[in-house]
Amino acid sequence: MRLAVFSSDWGARLGAVDGDDLVDITDLVAAPAGLAGPLHALLEQGLDLVRLAGANLRDRPRVPVRDATLLPPLPRPGKIVAAPVNYRDHQAEMAAPLTVADLGVFLKAPSSVVGHGGTVSLPYTDLRTDQEAELAVVIGRPARHVSVERALEYVAGYTCLFDITVRSTEDRSTRKSFDTFTPLGPWVTTPDEVGDPGTLSLRCWVNGVPRQSASTADLIFGVPRLIAYASSVMTLWPGDVIATGTPAGVGPIRHGDRVSMAIERVGRLEVTVTAADAIPYASRPGAKTAAVTA
Amino acid sequence: MRLAVFSSDWGARLGAVDGDDLVDITDLVAAPAGLAGPLHALLEQGLDLVRLAGANLRDRPRVPVRDATLLPPLPRPGKIVAAPVNYRDHQAEMAAPLTVADLGVFLKAPSSVVGHGGTVSLPYTDLRTDQEAELAVVIGRPARHVSVERALEYVAGYTCLFDITVRSTEDRSTRKSFDTFTPLGPWVTTPDEVGDPGTLSLRCWVNGVPRQSASTADLIFGVPRLIAYASSVMTLWPGDVIATGTPAGVGPIRHGDRVSMAIERVGRLEVTVTAADAIPYASRPGAKTAAVTA
Repeated sequence: MRLAVFSSDWGARLGAVDGDDLVDITDLVAAPAGLAGPLHALLEQGLDLVRLAGANLRDRPRVPVRDATLLPPLPRPGKIVAAPVNYRDHQAEMAAPLTVADLGVFLKAPSSVVGHGGTVSLPYTDLRTDQEAELAVVIGRPARHVSVERALEYVAGYTCLFDITVRSTEDRSTRKSFDTFTPLGPWVTTPDEVGDPGTLSLRCWVNGVPRQSASTADLIFGVPRLIAYASSVMTLWPGDVIATGTPAGVGPIRHGDRVSMAIERVGRLEVTVTAADAIPYASRPGAKTAAVTA
Repeated sequence: MRLAVFSSDWGARLGAVDGDDLVDITDLVAAPAGLAGPLHALLEQGLDLVRLAGANLRDRPRVPVRDATLLPPLPRPGKIVAAPVNYRDHQAEMAAPLTVADLGVFLKAPSSVVGHGGTVSLPYTDLRTDQEAELAVVIGRPARHVSVERALEYVAGYTCLFDITVRSTEDRSTRKSFDTFTPLGPWVTTPDEVGDPGTLSLRCWVNGVPRQSASTADLIFGVPRLIAYASSVMTLWPGDVIATGTPAGVGPIRHGDRVSMAIERVGRLEVTVTAADAIPYASRPGAKTAAVTA
């Protein structure tokens, strides 16, 4: 099943993709959805409900997917946990001495999420900003010290994620957390449709030109180990997102670019890029040339 | 006003400290509090309501503060944004080549919060874990690209925070995000009681022995600049927490330690330390000696 969040005159709705249609299953969400959205609310109610969501699609209202405005499936995840260097070929292209096994995970701001069809806003006119296409895992049950063997039991589904990244001296959390820096979507595909998350092809294009092409078989920490490790550090909550890392082929994105990715059996995500609000790096409020006594 | 969250038979309640009493003002919270707690819900309703919370304390139920079980004022902040090296004397003791002006901010997991009287759980038997006492700022209004001059208008209040930190090779987000690694409290003190956040004395003790003593006058990025800079990267939401950085005097904490801090005009926070669940670093699920093919 593919679970999408879409806009309506009555606010965000939860939909299940059925062929070319989105079937409205918002009535399954008992709690008020709030700012975290209806899929987040459904996940907090429990994975069994998610599994039931596929039942009785026929008697519910539906709209063609092509007519729907898709929103981020999880507009404000509790956490976005991400693997820094988790493919060998990306380690090589970055000349990175360490991998996820030394670096652990980092966090991206939940305020950085946009959805399919959204716009990535470049913050600085004079710093390189890259696309990094990644498989993302959505957590479905509270996970604390879970084993590698049982880790996949905690997965609600998978989606596509861009970990947009500024190349500079700042901490990863800064360089990767600007507003709009985590495109997510188009929907969350449940594990029954995805199967083994370690056998998925992942591809990325900028303006239709291929940039990244890899298999999740090449992850240094595969999905189960990444969940086990992350859950040994921090309790994972329903609706938390784990970005599994990007393969080789990261590169600069520029104003007007169309950036897209596709993951086998998961989905296809596309965003555009704008530099309309970009400023020179030296003029940011934290610049060392500015007075720092305020 | 000092706003505290405390437990009752009916769940978490919101209280205003009035002399030796906690006055129950939970009725001011219109929206269901949810997992983020009643203070978070009040902040999302708006700062004007927070300012009104001080009115009519006399007609409400009250309990002595000493009889109340204080909970973290914000058990699940939307974000915990933190300054990495923001006092010169701490930069010197860590021999850190860079400061907040180069490093920007990092993120701590919202799942790492505990409250006053809580317990910090050391993850590893064989890695040094330090206390870092910090002034924390609680955001009261959505903040995006705010100026240094107007930054304090976005502050709902101030509280005490320990940024507990493992010394290892991992990303800051990992080393500082273990469950229980962000003691926060005992309450949030509103700006009218705190005044200038750049003139506060901050002290920290371990088992009663002084470890840290500083003034927020020595912050490299003071509170206004830190808010301005953080809001230039990511939109800050009501209930987000900014940890302003720690001064010199960080050091290891051990099983059985009593760790406390006090900030002038803000409050006093104390926690204990346990190593009951600590494991050898080499036996974590991400250890390089373990198979990484799962």
